[in-house]
Amino acid sequence: MIAIDINCDMGESFGNYQIGNDQAIFPYITSSNIACGFHGGDPIHMERTIKQALLHQVQIGAHPGFPDLAGFGRRKMDLPPNELKAAVKYQVSAIKGVAESLGAFIRYVKPHGALYNLAAVDESVSNTLVQAIREIDPGLMIMGLAGSLFQEICADQDIRFVAEAFADRQYQADGSLRSRSLPESVLVDLDVVTNQVLEIILQKQVTAYDSTIIPLEAESICIHGDNPAAVKVLEALKSAFEKQGIVKRSFR
Amino acid sequence: MIAIDINCDMGESFGNYQIGNDQAIFPYITSSNIACGFHGGDPIHMERTIKQALLHQVQIGAHPGFPDLAGFGRRKMDLPPNELKAAVKYQVSAIKGVAESLGAFIRYVKPHGALYNLAAVDESVSNTLVQAIREIDPGLMIMGLAGSLFQEICADQDIRFVAEAFADRQYQADGSLRSRSLPESVLVDLDVVTNQVLEIILQKQVTAYDSTIIPLEAESICIHGDNPAAVKVLEALKSAFEKQGIVKRSFR
Amino acid sequence: MIAIDINCDMGESFGNYQIGNDQAIFPYITSSNIACGFHGGDPIHMERTIKQALLHQVQIGAHPGFPDLAGFGRRKMDLPPNELKAAVKYQVSAIKGVAESLGAFIRYVKPHGALYNLAAVDESVSNTLVQAIREIDPGLMIMGLAGSLFQEICADQDIRFVAEAFADRQYQADGSLRSRSLPESVLVDLDVVTNQVLEIILQKQVTAYDSTIIPLEAESICIHGDNPAAVKVLEALKSAFEKQGIVKRSFR
Amino acid sequence: MIAIDINCDMGESFGNYQIGNDQAIFPYITSSNIACGFHGGDPIHMERTIKQALLHQVQIGAHPGFPDLAGFGRRKMDLPPNELKAAVKYQVSAIKGVAESLGAFIRYVKPHGALYNLAAVDESVSNTLVQAIREIDPGLMIMGLAGSLFQEICADQDIRFVAEAFADRQYQADGSLRSRSLPESVLVDLDVVTNQVLEIILQKQVTAYDSTIIPLEAESICIHGDNPAAVKVLEALKSAFEKQGIVKRSFR
Repeated sequence: MIAIDINCDMGESFGNYQIGNDQAIFPYITSSNIACGFHGGDPIHMERTIKQALLHQVQIGAHPGFPDLAGFGRRKMDLPPNELKAAVKYQVSAIKGVAESLGAFIRYVKPHGALYNLAAVDESVSNTLVQAIREIDPGLMIMGLAGSLFQEICADQDIRFVAEAFADRQYQADGSLRSRSLPESVLVDLDVVTNQVLEIILQKQVTAYDSTIIPLEAESICIHGDNPAAVKVLEALKSAFEKQGIVKRSFR
Repeated sequence: MIAIDINCDMGESFGNYQIGNDQAIFPYITSSNIACGFHGGDPIHMERTIKQALLHQVQIGAHPGFPDLAGFGRRKMDLPPNELKAAVKYQVSAIKGVAESLGAFIRYVKPHGALYNLAAVDESVSNTLVQAIREIDPGLMIMGLAGSLFQEICADQDIRFVAEAFADRQYQADGSLRSRSLPESVLVDLDVVTNQVLEIILQKQVTAYDSTIIPLEAESICIHGDNPAAVKVLEALKSAFEKQGIVKRSFR
Repeated sequence: MIAIDINCDMGESFGNYQIGNDQAIFPYITSSNIACGFHGGDPIHMERTIKQALLHQVQIGAHPGFPDLAGFGRRKMDLPPNELKAAVKYQVSAIKGVAESLGAFIRYVKPHGALYNLAAVDESVSNTLVQAIREIDPGLMIMGLAGSLFQEICADQDIRFVAEAFADRQYQADGSLRSRSLPESVLVDLDVVTNQVLEIILQKQVTAYDSTIIPLEAESICIHGDNPAAVKVLEALKSAFEKQGIVKRSFR
Repeated sequence: MIAIDINCDMGESFGNYQIGNDQAIFPYITSSNIACGFHGGDPIHMERTIKQALLHQVQIGAHPGFPDLAGFGRRKMDLPPNELKAAVKYQVSAIKGVAESLGAFIRYVKPHGALYNLAAVDESVSNTLVQAIREIDPGLMIMGLAGSLFQEICADQDIRFVAEAFADRQYQADGSLRSRSLPESVLVDLDVVTNQVLEIILQKQVTAYDSTIIPLEAESICIHGDNPAAVKVLEALKSAFEKQGIVKRSFR
């Protein structure tokens, strides 16, 4: 039987501002990357989201980002390594303590947005993240882009790395994600999304924008919760998984 | 031999903005209330301040405040109890995790500014703070105003409360602090400050603005680090303590 | 023929966070209160919203609030009068200049949220707002709660005050709005909303929560754009207005 | 007689956080670049600083920056051109309206920090700034780095550009400033600073870090107010100017 994890960014609402559709998404996922209050999220939404994750028995990961609410953490920022390290340690500590106070546990860390993209290609950022996370809790797993430099660096340092692939993002021939600033970077057709996910799970490959076939091994599939069609995507995947005998299960 | 703790708010600088004179003050104090990033402070200053506290063997407390950098946490904010509780839990968790990653430990929590003042008189705020702190770590002590409602509520709930008094703030006849918005609320004359501190330690009382004598039992004396004369105050206290045989020592 | 203005808070989205449904609402309203970036809104949403107002020939008002994005300007803040005045002047100047650069004009100022509520009852806040607005442009009208102290103070100072009433908020016997923290403070039934609006326009009165009849003269009716039913409310009012021969028209 | 303008960044304090030493610096300068609340400054400090400029008859420029208080506007941010334009228009409008309400006028705009550095080399940023400023007020002058791409672009577009040089920053052979992240980027010796300024004014050149002589024509000399020695630098320049018959005078 083939098992796969489905993860989604959660808890990114801020104050009166709602983003994503967490309540509708929780029943479909097995891992939730919960925002830590820097790129999105705030203390009360963090608590609510952790409680929802507990209720739905969904695994929890810390989802730290750049300190940039206005840019939702999607703008590259030039933080010196010691500031970046401190910012990540602060965020992971905050959610770790809050989760433990509610009887939950943080299992992994997945960087958000521009920090995620930098970690995939920038050795200094990758190393800084690894150090920050280790200093807070050496038992935490790290989630990042399958096939990235980040995966290599974690392997070199004996960190349990969870490789993920994207359901609704177009890949480029070099294995990176097509930038959101370009057209057709986000897949919207349900069949296209479903086929990409099945290709990743069953054939361990993905077809890039220019039709190149890229080998890809992923333990988790990322769904974007701020995509208005997120629930439809999850429904479509559920049906496809049932037909193919694929089971959703958290990674360990 | 009489022993007393000296505490000071530390780590309140933010980004490029420096406030206080932490490096000059650390040698004189026995407890440091370190900002948690909401009313002041940021992750990199938090790390630096914890390292300084370790170096000077100064006890560390979490110093959470309202989420109001522009008002430095000194403006009363109407947060619903569940939001206030979440905000305090987030801040205490953040500094607790960061401190532990550096080999340090948080021993107590002292609320900041308007939150401190509200805790002294508002039952709901007091109870919310107690719950928040207990949920993060029931072993944490709480520091607050000597003789306040906060002290009573902590006593009722079997929380170890550390009563503090102020070196450089004028008291009112009811035992509260004279508001910063009024004239002569902050004591500046070194002799006046020294005499107030000695009166508190040796006679367990303080003389209010209108000359009323107020009984007061304090385990710690608070010095304001953003007072430009802070180091001179600490020097004056050091001399006075030596003459009187008073020893500086952290509370437990 | 009876004419009435319909106003709505607009442009309150921030960065990646969308709030309200501005595009769907613009065709139905005659005045738009555009956020100025403190309680909500940001420069790019401000520009977009001004352009939409121009396109739909909808009158523009500045909508300044407390500097509290996390609380959406709905939490009372104790700003000293000179800071409040400076904050309002800054916000009104910003939107005025941006509007003029796009060929639009700010006609009025309506304070937001907790600032709106304070202005209705607090003489100091009312006066501070009047001074701030006058210093930026003495030709600006002020919009506020019909029958409030703010209306009296503007009358005393010969400021053109536009009295507004609320379509979807329950009134209390003293003419104030029932607090959002209480149940049944927001009207949701379309017939109830429509009847309240017609009662205000045609009978110059409103029926309070306890059935008291309150005399009320309003030149404008406020619709809440963050109410998910806002468009349905506006549709229902459109039909009712047609039946009753009421015309929507901007105040002058 | 040789005349030169001396400019300094002013009004960058935020809430309880003081930066720079504006009161001591105003008597020595002829142009003040006043922060607009994004990288530093806030409404109340903006008002106070404008009043000080009026009192000292010092010319006022808007000093917009990236929306990054934590980084003091010194971190490069990837804002799309329309967002950057909106952010600059918002800031310039805000200070323009506030200044006019106080009987003062904004004469020029000087971008701050990372935005200043980008404008010097990036055509898109330069053009975006020019458009933003023109849309708010085509009569505003622009201040930027002498000899930069920004100067060329302003010349091409018939914008009055005020070329400035730096008193206390080391130049590189290509005419750019040596990065603050490198050693010896900031000049501290008073004689070295004075000689660099005299070289710029009298010989229309500057000697770079590697001893290259760079031709440089500047109408204004920038002093950094957050340099603790700023007043001493200004005193030294005053003496040197008196000896050399150089007069301080605002550009027009």
